[in-house]
Amino acid sequence: MDRNNPAIRYHLDGHGKIGTAIKTPVETPEDLALAYTPGVAEVCRTIAAEPETDVLLTNRGNTVAIVTDGTAILGLGDIGPTAGLPVMEGKAMLFKKTADVDAVPLCIRAESVDEIVDFCKRIEPSFGGINLEDIAAPTCFEVLERLERELDIPVFHDDQDGTAIVTLAALLNAAKVRGTALPDMRVVINGAGAAGIAIARLLLDEGVRDLVLVDSRGILGPERNDLSGAKRNIAERSNPRGLAGDLATAISEADAFVGVSKGNILNAGDIRTMAERPIVLAMANPDPEILPDEAVAGGAFIVGTGRSDFPNQINNALVFPGLFRGLLDARMKDRSFRMTDIPTLKNDVARALASVIEPSRDGILPSVFDAGVVPAIRAAIVER
Amino acid sequence: MDRNNPAIRYHLDGHGKIGTAIKTPVETPEDLALAYTPGVAEVCRTIAAEPETDVLLTNRGNTVAIVTDGTAILGLGDIGPTAGLPVMEGKAMLFKKTADVDAVPLCIRAESVDEIVDFCKRIEPSFGGINLEDIAAPTCFEVLERLERELDIPVFHDDQDGTAIVTLAALLNAAKVRGTALPDMRVVINGAGAAGIAIARLLLDEGVRDLVLVDSRGILGPERNDLSGAKRNIAERSNPRGLAGDLATAISEADAFVGVSKGNILNAGDIRTMAERPIVLAMANPDPEILPDEAVAGGAFIVGTGRSDFPNQINNALVFPGLFRGLLDARMKDRSFRMTDIPTLKNDVARALASVIEPSRDGILPSVFDAGVVPAIRAAIVER
Repeated sequence: MDRNNPAIRYHLDGHGKIGTAIKTPVETPEDLALAYTPGVAEVCRTIAAEPETDVLLTNRGNTVAIVTDGTAILGLGDIGPTAGLPVMEGKAMLFKKTADVDAVPLCIRAESVDEIVDFCKRIEPSFGGINLEDIAAPTCFEVLERLERELDIPVFHDDQDGTAIVTLAALLNAAKVRGTALPDMRVVINGAGAAGIAIARLLLDEGVRDLVLVDSRGILGPERNDLSGAKRNIAERSNPRGLAGDLATAISEADAFVGVSKGNILNAGDIRTMAERPIVLAMANPDPEILPDEAVAGGAFIVGTGRSDFPNQINNALVFPGLFRGLLDARMKDRSFRMTDIPTLKNDVARALASVIEPSRDGILPSVFDAGVVPAIRAAIVER
Repeated sequence: MDRNNPAIRYHLDGHGKIGTAIKTPVETPEDLALAYTPGVAEVCRTIAAEPETDVLLTNRGNTVAIVTDGTAILGLGDIGPTAGLPVMEGKAMLFKKTADVDAVPLCIRAESVDEIVDFCKRIEPSFGGINLEDIAAPTCFEVLERLERELDIPVFHDDQDGTAIVTLAALLNAAKVRGTALPDMRVVINGAGAAGIAIARLLLDEGVRDLVLVDSRGILGPERNDLSGAKRNIAERSNPRGLAGDLATAISEADAFVGVSKGNILNAGDIRTMAERPIVLAMANPDPEILPDEAVAGGAFIVGTGRSDFPNQINNALVFPGLFRGLLDARMKDRSFRMTDIPTLKNDVARALASVIEPSRDGILPSVFDAGVVPAIRAAIVER
């Protein structure tokens, strides 16, 4: 352990970042008789008799489980559940700080789709929503699809939909600064895992026509006979010019590059092959596909990364707190609310996020600390 | 929902009682770069490379899961996981208030021993300990036995061992006030579920010789051919005079009655058949086996109940916070610490709890708010 590393020191200071807060007074035996026995028995009886009172009488309606199997932590891969805990604690901290959502990190041992689905169904009675996190593809696709059908509470895979929503918001505002309509742009996505495929789906829903995905074996297209499942499906819906080849082929003349792959795979020369005033969103964590200075040297007009220490951070943290604030509040108003009943919900949320600021080249997205973000996203979900 | 009920009002005020607390600063982009990406990657890598740093770099070492299947909530029976949430939130509140332990209520859907054991093994990577709660007998016996073998972190079933420890502490101090040695007393336990059997085991370990258990079919003894498992075992280790019959037979001439059964099953006349100056611990929740006034009318010398609105509350809340404070701290000092390696641990904890006060007839146990309780129990575990 490198005790001179500032992030290590920061974590040592708190023994982690979150804990339990007490919301009601518990100072006297009288308080205890209300919060605990004997008074609590009447509260339990009430929920047993009128199940919909749970969100009024407990914290269930404000509590989200952050569930991961530790198989795809940041860009670090399968480092196991406990080593993923610092990320989940960080998310819980952001949930609380920006949207007053209470969240519980649950880094679990699980080996299959069935085990993750089964786990989430077991914990449903205690939670108002489930935020899946850092679960490797293709497991994550099937987990999300099954849970959307099998749970009553909202479920959201941050590495699919969170990344897709914030990326769409970034592209909408970058296109606005550049003076182009997003649907008219050629967009290349490098990385066809959980994030890449979810971004592709959302861009297609937004009307983008010339979309090309690239994975570690090259462009997804008709010549690829090694594809199945979600990759096969998205290959059939994208690449209208029938391109084949590698990333260099794909980004030639492209208006926008979206990287959700791995660090340091592009250089200034690659950016020079793109269209005029290209948009480069290099979001691999912790090392972006190309560093901002290098991208600008290659002529990039707007550069974004996943990191908080460069301008234009494209950060899921802009989405998940407000999104769950909205979902929890929508369910508080109407227990039958289901996010899957609203096909445009994710696009609406992305547009709401983009609308929070008047964008500029170094400011395509608001700050995570911008007090306007959570209310705007919440409103896109609740006030419809 | 009865909004005039003070406990209902108390719970409505907070929408439950607990939430998430943030322990470290998160006010600026610089903070975020340490708490979250990119800084957190180094923290994850460190835990992956040096697993024992998890308790320093995350909150795992201070966090306990409160796990229930909702099958035996208070005295209310199988009311389901969500209806049990108010009790678990109350426990989490007490964990934090009295021992600075962070606890997470996990009220789960589970149908068998295997499902509960499997669940606890899945969540182990995120927690420093597991407090099982309100799981019906006989499921709870096998769950606890298996988890004690199969988990590395400490596990404790509050309705077995928590109740047993606080009951032993109460009896030790009641015996002291009465001027009798506990091992010389005739003790009757009514209720042979999770709590009754755990109390019996602990009293036998403490040297009590004349112990009689009674269940809904009568005294546990050689004439009972309907017993199996844990009940059979405890029947063979108790009832040295070979009594048979009902509760009235058992408590005749008994020095102490311990009730962990159901409300309103004794009257003053029953108490009159006991030995001189009898001790009556009527701990059924929310309604005790006999109300204190009635027990005193029958000649009871000392009366305790499970309730906070009578004197002599015999409350697990005196045990579980300090016990986990001690277990978590012991594991922080020595990762190989296992509570099952110390056969006298529960008796030591009970004696430490009893020693916190100089007892009196209306004060056989300290208050849950007594600042001496947690340090005394912690010391009995950590400083040995």
